[in-house]
Amino acid sequence: MKVNGVDYRTIWLAEDGWAVEIIDQTKLPHAFETHRLETVEAAAVAIGDMLVRGAPLIGATAAYAMALAMRSDAADDNIPRAHDLLLATRPTAVNLRWALAEMTALLNPLPPQQRSAAAYVRAAEICDQDAAMCHAIGEHGAALIEAVAARGTGGPVNILTHCNAGWLATVDWGTALAPIYVAHDRGVDLHVWVDETRPRNQGASLTAWELASHGVPHTLIADNAGGHLMQHGMVDLCITGSDRTTAAGDVCNKIGTYLKALAAKDCGVPFHVALPISTIDWSMGDGLKEIPIEQRDENEVLEISGRDAAGEVHTVRIAPENCRAANYAFDVTPARLVSGLITERGRCEASRQGLLDLYPEQR
Amino acid sequence: MKVNGVDYRTIWLAEDGWAVEIIDQTKLPHAFETHRLETVEAAAVAIGDMLVRGAPLIGATAAYAMALAMRSDAADDNIPRAHDLLLATRPTAVNLRWALAEMTALLNPLPPQQRSAAAYVRAAEICDQDAAMCHAIGEHGAALIEAVAARGTGGPVNILTHCNAGWLATVDWGTALAPIYVAHDRGVDLHVWVDETRPRNQGASLTAWELASHGVPHTLIADNAGGHLMQHGMVDLCITGSDRTTAAGDVCNKIGTYLKALAAKDCGVPFHVALPISTIDWSMGDGLKEIPIEQRDENEVLEISGRDAAGEVHTVRIAPENCRAANYAFDVTPARLVSGLITERGRCEASRQGLLDLYPEQR
Repeated sequence: MKVNGVDYRTIWLAEDGWAVEIIDQTKLPHAFETHRLETVEAAAVAIGDMLVRGAPLIGATAAYAMALAMRSDAADDNIPRAHDLLLATRPTAVNLRWALAEMTALLNPLPPQQRSAAAYVRAAEICDQDAAMCHAIGEHGAALIEAVAARGTGGPVNILTHCNAGWLATVDWGTALAPIYVAHDRGVDLHVWVDETRPRNQGASLTAWELASHGVPHTLIADNAGGHLMQHGMVDLCITGSDRTTAAGDVCNKIGTYLKALAAKDCGVPFHVALPISTIDWSMGDGLKEIPIEQRDENEVLEISGRDAAGEVHTVRIAPENCRAANYAFDVTPARLVSGLITERGRCEASRQGLLDLYPEQR
Repeated sequence: MKVNGVDYRTIWLAEDGWAVEIIDQTKLPHAFETHRLETVEAAAVAIGDMLVRGAPLIGATAAYAMALAMRSDAADDNIPRAHDLLLATRPTAVNLRWALAEMTALLNPLPPQQRSAAAYVRAAEICDQDAAMCHAIGEHGAALIEAVAARGTGGPVNILTHCNAGWLATVDWGTALAPIYVAHDRGVDLHVWVDETRPRNQGASLTAWELASHGVPHTLIADNAGGHLMQHGMVDLCITGSDRTTAAGDVCNKIGTYLKALAAKDCGVPFHVALPISTIDWSMGDGLKEIPIEQRDENEVLEISGRDAAGEVHTVRIAPENCRAANYAFDVTPARLVSGLITERGRCEASRQGLLDLYPEQR
């Protein structure tokens, strides 16, 4: 998507055709800095230190990191070495594991002198496939926004989103934000309510930034505000992403998603969840009982970072000394609160039947 | 309540018996500083600059400010002068208007030489009455906590609260926190989940501070987390305050209260609202339609203050440059989501009938 009028992806080959460039997302929203990766070690640091984040982008970065590894040393023993180095950076990331398995399976049978070129080709494919998948989600979801616009009630279509499921979390387009970008690019008059998404503030630091960069009208709100907006008809639909979706349509997403889904249900506002097939866990039924919820460092709640008047970034403590915090990172929204799922194959009901209709091969 | 083991109210007479002392609440939670008021002008600044806040405490401060005014000049024309100066500080505060009307009605008929002494007596009464009213709310609400404890399921009674309806907002005890203090002081094993309450963070800066100061176990959470906690049986009951309550039992309270009430309903967790009679608007039925919601400065969402490692307080911007925010300060929780109201007269259903049973003189 666009940054200052220029098209970007979150990862791309440098002009020299071999180094990999990324956006240093830890600097957002206060600075837009790109970062050049020349070694697998540098790529591992970029993933571990969260210069890149979001499951699809982590997978794409790992794929290119394997290409960097093969370029410097295509010997047999460098494949597992690079694989293990990268896997250790974010051991629970599903897409990381998948991309590394994919690259290893590709590289192992090849003669060393073919490995580097093949790795670059496959990494580029993984990126293109992710972008195409997200764009398809965008196409399917945009129809929902266009249907609201077609009612012609005057004024923009108001969409509420939570956390960041935008292009910064993927290679391009995003998941929850893809329908918004597609509709916006087609000229639909829309406006996005951006939940700031405490405690890590991905709404303020990533979603608001990427919407602004692409020119999509939006307003930042405290996470507490969405219910009030829905009570007063100021939200036409909600779209969020999903970190993990059960075969029954339960959605595990950033903490606070459940509260917005409750308000949407209470106020009659459609609540849609956009997700690629990779987030669906076909083995899982009851999300509330079965999905383990990560607890993160309490300092994410107790402290916050921002820019002072001089432009310098500070971390400040907002809680009393000695205060303790709990920091559950995700919650589960039961399928009964979800109006529909938007995947790369189309839209469906948030239910086992709905998902199986889209993915009949899972029967 | 206690601060470092010493009993405090939020407002008291200095040792010299005439100056008024308050806690500078703008310095919390990073510093506990008391502040001496010697003139009506200083008291007006303390109210306007929110060194004191919370409707009952604003009223009490205004009452003592009238006493300070009479002590320096008890002439007839100083009564309306002091009245108008104070009223202009927070023109929409109901308790401020009430306390000033009360003092004016008392002082006007008296001969000047009796005014100062009478004003001090009445101000002390207003403070004592507020503390007694809050303590009565605490007694009635504590029964709810003790009933959970009596089920003896092991572990503490877990109570979730939103914003600050504690002793810092009143003269003593608070409203939502009064039942917690009363039960805690009686030895009930309890633990409080404290919503940080963005955007002004009263949970982190006031509620967590006052619970810690009094020795009540608590944990700070992001506003997004309460739904997850309730889904997993980690909340036994919710208690919040109310800024305005309709005759039908709808509750207007800090933005985000509605979302917690929805989660409580969905998870079968009792949701109680503690309030003094002064918040009840008997003329109002449908809170959602009738209560105007204040929109505050967007900078409360875009910026945040905290203490750096050196102990210095900074304000930092957490949103991108040029980002705009909406800042609705309150929302309305419909009576259907409220399990019960706790007032100084007892507990009742959140309905017109429930309130009239407690306040039959309003029939």
